[in-house]
Amino acid sequence: MSGRGTGGSGEDELIARYFRPLARSPGAFGLTDDAAVLPAGAGDLVVTTDALVAGVHFLPDDPPETLARKALRVNLSDLAAKGAVPAGFVLTLALREADDTWLSAFARALGEDAAAFACPLMGGDTVHTDGPLTLSITAFGRVPPGRMVRRAGARAGDIVAVSGTIGDAVAGLHVLKTGAAAPAYAPLVARYRVPEPRVALAGALLDHATAAMDVSDGLVGDLAKLCATSGVTARIEAARVPVSPAAAALLAADPSLTRAALITGGDDYEILCTAGPAAFESLRTKARAAGVTLTAIGRIEEGMAPPRFVDGEGRDMVFARASYSHF
Amino acid sequence: MSGRGTGGSGEDELIARYFRPLARSPGAFGLTDDAAVLPAGAGDLVVTTDALVAGVHFLPDDPPETLARKALRVNLSDLAAKGAVPAGFVLTLALREADDTWLSAFARALGEDAAAFACPLMGGDTVHTDGPLTLSITAFGRVPPGRMVRRAGARAGDIVAVSGTIGDAVAGLHVLKTGAAAPAYAPLVARYRVPEPRVALAGALLDHATAAMDVSDGLVGDLAKLCATSGVTARIEAARVPVSPAAAALLAADPSLTRAALITGGDDYEILCTAGPAAFESLRTKARAAGVTLTAIGRIEEGMAPPRFVDGEGRDMVFARASYSHF
Repeated sequence: MSGRGTGGSGEDELIARYFRPLARSPGAFGLTDDAAVLPAGAGDLVVTTDALVAGVHFLPDDPPETLARKALRVNLSDLAAKGAVPAGFVLTLALREADDTWLSAFARALGEDAAAFACPLMGGDTVHTDGPLTLSITAFGRVPPGRMVRRAGARAGDIVAVSGTIGDAVAGLHVLKTGAAAPAYAPLVARYRVPEPRVALAGALLDHATAAMDVSDGLVGDLAKLCATSGVTARIEAARVPVSPAAAALLAADPSLTRAALITGGDDYEILCTAGPAAFESLRTKARAAGVTLTAIGRIEEGMAPPRFVDGEGRDMVFARASYSHF
Repeated sequence: MSGRGTGGSGEDELIARYFRPLARSPGAFGLTDDAAVLPAGAGDLVVTTDALVAGVHFLPDDPPETLARKALRVNLSDLAAKGAVPAGFVLTLALREADDTWLSAFARALGEDAAAFACPLMGGDTVHTDGPLTLSITAFGRVPPGRMVRRAGARAGDIVAVSGTIGDAVAGLHVLKTGAAAPAYAPLVARYRVPEPRVALAGALLDHATAAMDVSDGLVGDLAKLCATSGVTARIEAARVPVSPAAAALLAADPSLTRAALITGGDDYEILCTAGPAAFESLRTKARAAGVTLTAIGRIEEGMAPPRFVDGEGRDMVFARASYSHF
């Protein structure tokens, strides 16, 4: 973990105090070197990067614990979708100030997740900013040579499936913004703050999926990307998109939240994947054995048009905004 | 290169227009996937991360071309110090707005350097921020298994050496801040804005150095870190620290700039290394063949005290601030 700072500086003390305990991998050298080593090994290294900015990707008053977990988990979610086993990560932290309470809670939660997901901290950089707190994580995973599960690869006739439930995170954000503080909605807020990366699915995806990605920007937009990269389209039955009981309750209680919002809102960090019909059964069985529900929601079709989402009456749904974009 | 954005979003268009042309490596998948692949290969993968924040690491009005080059080069400098051959990098860019002129100049310069240093863009993330422009690059290099050149490894009796000249960058920043606009000082400003990573030294360091790091936070502080990690101290003759003609001229003309400032200022991105006396001659010969001057500035000694910098009269120099720290 490099920083601009000397042996006795506040910055090096910060790194030593909060982050060195997390850097247990031999290749991290206890964060005392300028670089880390990922040892030569069988397999390709999969690399993914996700940045989180206060006020954009999380609420400025989100607790440090949930923020730490989310920052790592959104990257673990990408690795899982690619069929990769986590190998480690580096962290860039741009902070306004070195607040002891905040840093200590942040590092403790980050360390717990790094241990739980067997993805050790390898290095990083800690810098000052006058702007919003910004975190950037680059995570590494391993796959057998040439086997990373791509976005490209979906073929006409493939089943389109998603893991878990869709829309909980955006419903949770809605709860936070509207202050609808019923205990029934607590799981939605929890899902917004701390996603559940489907690392248990990596092996099954590697064996059976033709294409996969994680749902981060909204199901509608992310499926459009997967289809565009694969050179296909899809027909999705929107009513089959799995929704949690809590999200269904909120949908029923609050007309300002729509089903369209759930499937375009993003922050789900569920797996969107495609597989041939026979392979899909194997994939679903393995997923179930790993404790994850996979739900078929439609089919890949030939064509280059954006995927169609069809409602219960067979009508095409129209979305004001397919997914989130920064610019 | 993932972004929160859909197929037709401004963000994906931004990535496609400016950054896809840089992603020529097969493992980058033209930035159309969620992750990149660094293929399995002989050797360990060396990983380094450096972030740059506007107003902290560069001036807010620095040109986009120099900023792009600096962001990549500070990471290439770390790889060189570790004896690693560049293999690729990922970029996180937190932007206030997607300005076409700025992005196009930034991406062109980044692409030129990526090609010149054979270090292709593999992926990244582009996000919005309300704060200062923030760039984070994680770069990858390869070394033979177990051979990364460490900070630890310096032994009593080793020669301490630096590449090139020290203090040009901080002198250049001084020129920018004081407006001392003599043409003679232009090389100093150029060195502040665009460092020259010593990638040509990587092989020689791998073969002969006992320890190495790049000088980013100031020679005094960085040597203190190297010594602390190696469990040794050092005696440096400050007069032997090489200074460029332009920096010497500025020192003579402006009493507000001191020699102490040059060796504590940082942003040099030269190599600080140690080697046994015989190995040092081989190292210096190979460096010269690669077009880089290595200068012996002192010796590693036993002990745990901070390194001593001794002036021309044999007196210990005392520094108000050994190097830069963010906190």
